[in-house]
Amino acid sequence: MQFTFGSYTTGIHIRQELPSADDLFSPAEPSPGTGIIICDENTLTMAEKIRGDSGIALCVLPPGEGAKNWAGTETILQAASKAGLGRDGLFIAVGGGVITDLSGFAASIYMRGVRCAFVSTTLLGMVDASVGGKTGIDLWGAKNMAGTFYPAGDVYMPMEALATLPRTEWKSGLAELIKTAVIGDRECLRLLEEEMETVKNPPGLRQPKTAGFMEELISRAVSVKGRIVESDPRETGENRALLNLGHTFGHALESSLGLGKISHGEAVAWGMARAAELGEALGVCSGALRKRIIGILSGYGYEIRAPYPGTADREVYKRTMEQDKKKKAGSLRFIIPDENGARIIDQKDIPGVLWAKIIQGCGI
Amino acid sequence: MQFTFGSYTTGIHIRQELPSADDLFSPAEPSPGTGIIICDENTLTMAEKIRGDSGIALCVLPPGEGAKNWAGTETILQAASKAGLGRDGLFIAVGGGVITDLSGFAASIYMRGVRCAFVSTTLLGMVDASVGGKTGIDLWGAKNMAGTFYPAGDVYMPMEALATLPRTEWKSGLAELIKTAVIGDRECLRLLEEEMETVKNPPGLRQPKTAGFMEELISRAVSVKGRIVESDPRETGENRALLNLGHTFGHALESSLGLGKISHGEAVAWGMARAAELGEALGVCSGALRKRIIGILSGYGYEIRAPYPGTADREVYKRTMEQDKKKKAGSLRFIIPDENGARIIDQKDIPGVLWAKIIQGCGI
Repeated sequence: MQFTFGSYTTGIHIRQELPSADDLFSPAEPSPGTGIIICDENTLTMAEKIRGDSGIALCVLPPGEGAKNWAGTETILQAASKAGLGRDGLFIAVGGGVITDLSGFAASIYMRGVRCAFVSTTLLGMVDASVGGKTGIDLWGAKNMAGTFYPAGDVYMPMEALATLPRTEWKSGLAELIKTAVIGDRECLRLLEEEMETVKNPPGLRQPKTAGFMEELISRAVSVKGRIVESDPRETGENRALLNLGHTFGHALESSLGLGKISHGEAVAWGMARAAELGEALGVCSGALRKRIIGILSGYGYEIRAPYPGTADREVYKRTMEQDKKKKAGSLRFIIPDENGARIIDQKDIPGVLWAKIIQGCGI
Repeated sequence: MQFTFGSYTTGIHIRQELPSADDLFSPAEPSPGTGIIICDENTLTMAEKIRGDSGIALCVLPPGEGAKNWAGTETILQAASKAGLGRDGLFIAVGGGVITDLSGFAASIYMRGVRCAFVSTTLLGMVDASVGGKTGIDLWGAKNMAGTFYPAGDVYMPMEALATLPRTEWKSGLAELIKTAVIGDRECLRLLEEEMETVKNPPGLRQPKTAGFMEELISRAVSVKGRIVESDPRETGENRALLNLGHTFGHALESSLGLGKISHGEAVAWGMARAAELGEALGVCSGALRKRIIGILSGYGYEIRAPYPGTADREVYKRTMEQDKKKKAGSLRFIIPDENGARIIDQKDIPGVLWAKIIQGCGI
């Protein structure tokens, strides 16, 4: 699979095994000073396997969102400089969304931009973060406050990496997979419904026969995302915004619970339920589709009740919703599932009584 | 004048007066939360004049290269965030190369890139830094270690701003103007030779009748630079490297003297003399052209003797030369003036005896 995002191209390699350093540098050959592998402590074993005896540099970061800041960026830039990488050097990120977002950002600014390749090791990374060129770091607690649009030249998605993925990580990725199926591939949605009991469990807990099936689901999701980004690489039009289905509600929920309390996927799943309900109230999403989406989300074990059970801070929820950085010219936009995929509804087209319910986080 | 750099376009506005906030936002209108003006203490008066009563935010940095780092970047990003700038916000840099490099970098990463406009206030900024999309910050003493390729949408070059430029700043800019004339506009070089006594003095010390003449020289230099960058925006080919005439020698000299001892322009002028001598020794540059270039540089008061008089550290000179970040695949490239402009000579095509002289900083 290959995509063209503006002036960039990205090759996607969905396969069983991790790539070797030779695969990543091909047709050139890896040697000291030509590349750097960036990983975190969780993906170090995979990174070392990829590195082999190529002699390329290795930069290990602490795991988690906490590394996704300027200090993390500087650690990578300094390691690259120390390893003697020039403008023709290659940055290789081995990890989930935090590592690929951060490494992609570092690659985009090192000597004004060097090539980068991603080895995506999580389901969330494969179906979402690793494709489409959005890089970023967090500043002052604000997610992706700084970043660039800088797609990786190659993205490897080795099924082998998923074998050790913890259940919570798997569940977080599945929400984005369901989201992508809703907006762009209803056949994929049908497969997710029919094979729920198979898909639910992470690969490490499943029968080997399902490996090919997961490759198909991932391939379908990547294809949907890639096509959408191709049509609107820098999110200047409307298309790319469709990928934010569930995210405006989800971000507000994450903020109101305190960052890190629930996974990104759980927040997005909850947000999709809200978007479906809002869509039904607006007459955009049929009752049947709303039921179908909520049925799948419940089936996969996501919390979809509103208000979210527990200690969500309604004031923070309301404020986050109003400050959402996707707001343009003072108006918030919601992505609403419909019969053909999803569409964008502007806040100004939402009746006041519905809007009051939305910003209270009470559902519709 | 308008240029197309890859997927970006830059409009150049060479004129007498500073632009107003209305000019910069046109056809939109400035209002609080839509833009931020970035300046340093030296350009604050101009920035305030531009800002007028538009209500847009103002971010004032300390003057000098010291602000061109991550702390300076973060100061700008935080000011933009505090002012409530969204993805459709406008960054306006008012200053010389440090302010435009830094502000362009901040604009390129704020929320993954917002529009930026430059009001270039120095001769060096006008003929070099403000056009072509190279943004950057220094890290660990290494110049432009991080940066992006992100051309400003509009660059204003108000002659009014040059009236208060100190003599040393003027001289620094003239070297880049001479360099540009050598590589791309020999008619401009002739004007620089003939009108030496007029051009030498900064505008504040000259007769008003020469304002139009300076506009012509600047316009010619910007035209040369713009055309070269258009043909090779990201310096992936050979063309853009031509703009580095004098820079490999100059950087090594700056490092060996200690950063800040001489101006960038003085270093480039000295480097151009070395490039001309090397060219003559290689049979690429005629004796007449070498004499002409050195004559102009001497006439404008640049130190062109080699070794450079004083306390240059030869070991540092040698090491910098060898580490120059423009080296590709282990080989250094020199830009050499010739009858048609300039060409690139690879280190491997330089006889060993000449090379030994070069890295000793002794001239040819």
